[in-house]
Amino acid sequence: MTYCLGILVNDGLLLAADSRTNAGVDYISAYQKLFDFSVPGERVIVLCTSGSLSTSQAVIHRLERDINADNKQNLHSLPTLYDVAEYVGQVLREVQERDRPWLEKDGIDFQSNFIIGGQIAGEPMGLYLIYGQGNFIHSTPETPYIQIGETKYGKPILDRTLSEKSSLDDIAKSALLSMDSTMRSNISVGPPINLVLYESNALEIHKRVQLLRNDPYLRELRLHWEQALRAAAQSMPDIEWNKISVSKEPDFELDA
Amino acid sequence: MTYCLGILVNDGLLLAADSRTNAGVDYISAYQKLFDFSVPGERVIVLCTSGSLSTSQAVIHRLERDINADNKQNLHSLPTLYDVAEYVGQVLREVQERDRPWLEKDGIDFQSNFIIGGQIAGEPMGLYLIYGQGNFIHSTPETPYIQIGETKYGKPILDRTLSEKSSLDDIAKSALLSMDSTMRSNISVGPPINLVLYESNALEIHKRVQLLRNDPYLRELRLHWEQALRAAAQSMPDIEWNKISVSKEPDFELDA
Repeated sequence: MTYCLGILVNDGLLLAADSRTNAGVDYISAYQKLFDFSVPGERVIVLCTSGSLSTSQAVIHRLERDINADNKQNLHSLPTLYDVAEYVGQVLREVQERDRPWLEKDGIDFQSNFIIGGQIAGEPMGLYLIYGQGNFIHSTPETPYIQIGETKYGKPILDRTLSEKSSLDDIAKSALLSMDSTMRSNISVGPPINLVLYESNALEIHKRVQLLRNDPYLRELRLHWEQALRAAAQSMPDIEWNKISVSKEPDFELDA
Repeated sequence: MTYCLGILVNDGLLLAADSRTNAGVDYISAYQKLFDFSVPGERVIVLCTSGSLSTSQAVIHRLERDINADNKQNLHSLPTLYDVAEYVGQVLREVQERDRPWLEKDGIDFQSNFIIGGQIAGEPMGLYLIYGQGNFIHSTPETPYIQIGETKYGKPILDRTLSEKSSLDDIAKSALLSMDSTMRSNISVGPPINLVLYESNALEIHKRVQLLRNDPYLRELRLHWEQALRAAAQSMPDIEWNKISVSKEPDFELDA
C-alpha cells in the first residue's frame, strides 16, 4: 500500500509520500514515490504515485525519456499544468495498453494513480489527481487536498484542520499528522516520508525533507499529538445521559 | 454502511451504533443497529450489527424467538458470554444457510457482523466480534475496542486515546469522537447514534443516550473538537526543513 497526499492553499502547495511497497506482508521494501521534475525559475512539477509499482515505474520512465529525447510533448515543454495532467494520463494509458492483458489474465492489479502538483511561470498553481484510467480532476477551494492509496485513516485530520486559507506551516504539520495516523493503522504504509513544500510564485522548491523511521522529529510529533489528542478528548463537554433512552423499540426520526 | 463500536476497559464497557442503512446512495433510511437483551440484576447483553440488513434482522428475530419459546439455548439462559458468542455465530450460520444461495446468485452481499458486549452474574465482562462466517474473537487489553462496518475513519482517535485503564467518561467521549469522524467522512454512516455505557458488576445499564442529527450536544462536541484539533495541529513542533533533501535518486534506508 501507499499513502500520498497533495494540499493546495492560497499560499502554496505541499506534496507528501511514504515509501513502503509490498507484495503481501512478507515482501516489504522501500521505493521512492515522489518525483520532482522541476526546472527552477521556470516550472515546478512534482508527482506522487500509488498502485502497481511496475505501472508507475514505466510511466515515470517514459516521462523521463520524453524529456531526454526532447519529444514535442514532455514535462519541460508543456505550457500549462492542465496539459501536463492530460499528458501523464495519456502515458499511463499507453503503459496500460501494453501490460494490462498480461496482468489481468493472472488477476494482478495493474492500476496506478498519480498526484501532480506545481506551477508553470505565468500560470496559477495546480493540484491534479490522475485516476488509473487516465482521466483526472483538480482540487478545489472547498476540498483543498487530494489523497491516493490508503486514504481513510488520514482523512479526518485533514477535514478538521485544512482550508484554502491555511498557512504553509500549518498544512505541513497537518500533512505529517495525516501521514502518521495512516502509518499507525496500516503497516503497509511506512517511512521514509518525503515531503516538499512550495511557496506560490517562487517557481522553485525551497523546503524539502525526508523523515526516516527513527527520525526524532517524527517521534516528537507523535508524542505531542497523542498527548494533545488525549487532552482534547478529555476536555470535551460531558455527555447528558438518559436524555433519550434507547429501548428495544426506539422512537426513530429519519433526519438524514 | 454502518459504524458500530464496542470498548471494554477495566471499569466497564461501551457499545455505540449509528442508524443509517442504504441500498445505494438513493435509498437511505434509519434502522436500529443496537439491541439490548439484558435482564437487569442478572445479565447485561447488548448486540450491535453491521452488514446485510435482512441477515441481521433474521438473526435478531431468531434470538428473540428462542427467548420467547424458552428454547434450551437462548440469550437469557446461556451461562457465559463465550456461550452467547458461539450461539449467535451458530444462528448467523443457520440464517446464511437459508439465504446465501439466493443472494449469492445475484451477487448481493449476505454477510453480517455482530458485536456482543456484556456481563453475566458471576462472570467477568466480555466483548466479542462475531464475523460473517460465525467464528468470533474477543477484545484484549492491548486493543480494548472492536469495530464493525466503516472502521477506518474512526480508528486513529481510538488508537491514540484508549487504554484498558481509561475511565468510563473518557471512553464515551472517545467513542462519540470516533463516531463523529466517521459520519463526517462517510455519508452512509449517520444519526441517530445510540450509545450505552455499562459499569462493571452493575448487572444493569444505567447510562444510555440517543443523539439525533440536530442534537445540540453533537454540534457542541464537533465544534470543540475541530477547535482543539486545529490548535493541537498548530502547536506541533516546527519541521526542520532541508535536513535530508529529496532528490531524484534518494539515499534510501529500508527501516521497516
